Amino acid sequence: MSGEPTKRITSMPGVRRLPFYLNLLRCLHAEGGEIVSAITLAEASGHPAPVVKKDIEITGAAGKTGVGYEIGDLIEKLEDFIGWKNPQDAILVGVGHLGCVLLGHDNLNLRGLNFVAAFDSDPERADRMCQDVKVFHISKMPGLIKQLRIKTAVITVPAAEAQAAADLLVEAGIRLIWSFAPTLLNVPDSVTVQREDLSAGLAELLVKSRLNESMG
Amino acid sequence: MSGEPTKRITSMPGVRRLPFYLNLLRCLHAEGGEIVSAITLAEASGHPAPVVKKDIEITGAAGKTGVGYEIGDLIEKLEDFIGWKNPQDAILVGVGHLGCVLLGHDNLNLRGLNFVAAFDSDPERADRMCQDVKVFHISKMPGLIKQLRIKTAVITVPAAEAQAAADLLVEAGIRLIWSFAPTLLNVPDSVTVQREDLSAGLAELLVKSRLNESMG
Repeated sequence: MSGEPTKRITSMPGVRRLPFYLNLLRCLHAEGGEIVSAITLAEASGHPAPVVKKDIEITGAAGKTGVGYEIGDLIEKLEDFIGWKNPQDAILVGVGHLGCVLLGHDNLNLRGLNFVAAFDSDPERADRMCQDVKVFHISKMPGLIKQLRIKTAVITVPAAEAQAAADLLVEAGIRLIWSFAPTLLNVPDSVTVQREDLSAGLAELLVKSRLNESMG
Repeated sequence: MSGEPTKRITSMPGVRRLPFYLNLLRCLHAEGGEIVSAITLAEASGHPAPVVKKDIEITGAAGKTGVGYEIGDLIEKLEDFIGWKNPQDAILVGVGHLGCVLLGHDNLNLRGLNFVAAFDSDPERADRMCQDVKVFHISKMPGLIKQLRIKTAVITVPAAEAQAAADLLVEAGIRLIWSFAPTLLNVPDSVTVQREDLSAGLAELLVKSRLNESMG
């Protein structure tokens, strides 16, 4: 965060790490664990213990010095902070492979979103179900968003169609967009966009591998 | 990077931002642009100009003070640093929706990987093509990896199958794993794992939206 009193927060590495800690904690909990130290979380996640502690601190959870965190309590705090306890109704536009992946989000351990409908510009994809979510033709999107008062949308259309989709969404009242299209979206300041970029991870992988080779 | 002479680099936010700059630069280049300032890249990417400058610095590219970066040169430097100019042969294991998304990576502007084969444990998915890549039954994976001397693999199997897949890959000689399974993988130190976590982006989106609401 830039330290400025800005409304647009563009990067939150600590927040991004929380779901992984949550995953770990759930595994430990399922195995009967009750207490976990920051060092254990650090080893399991690959982040240094001070980073783990700082990340957890932003959620308001506190461990006991020399003891650790109470696992059940920490799970509760993390879920609460991320907002996974009260899923938001959401729609998805672009029901290709990636759209289907996200609609079936249970497999990916995604939470926080409750998909009530999906849309596609291809008539062949409309009027069927995808992962238990009804798919409609995109022409029905603005009306349904308004009628159901949906505020959150996921964009999984090709880059060339993403801005048009965003325009439709914003016009219909969407305030929160999670976009997987590899392109910039122009939206009003009142709309929050989270851009997901799979190529970012690939770049990290490739650079890591080169560094590890040169050091190994 | 931690500053320690460690072989395991676990987080490189700057490297993760490079593909997006590259996307922007290609757009500007296609529109006939020749020079771009860090400020323009900052505005378009949503990151502060000093961050953009620092990110670009790691690639070895340098701008001219008061002028900016030569776009063609910067594209070249970024592609070279990320390793997108010499794609690595790779295989993918788990040809579900997400696997198909990644095999058809052109749509996602992924580069650096050249998929030579894909594998699945479901016989129904084997012996067909997915996005122009041949899918084989997983029983053929170790032999083909060894035969083709593949070092890079993408894991898109469910969490419960991920460790078994990783074990097979490592045993067959894979050194670099890009994993989309929401689980930890135990691999030898000589293997680099990049974990991709879609729920990280969702967490960021949800927290951002709450912060924006409370400040708006």
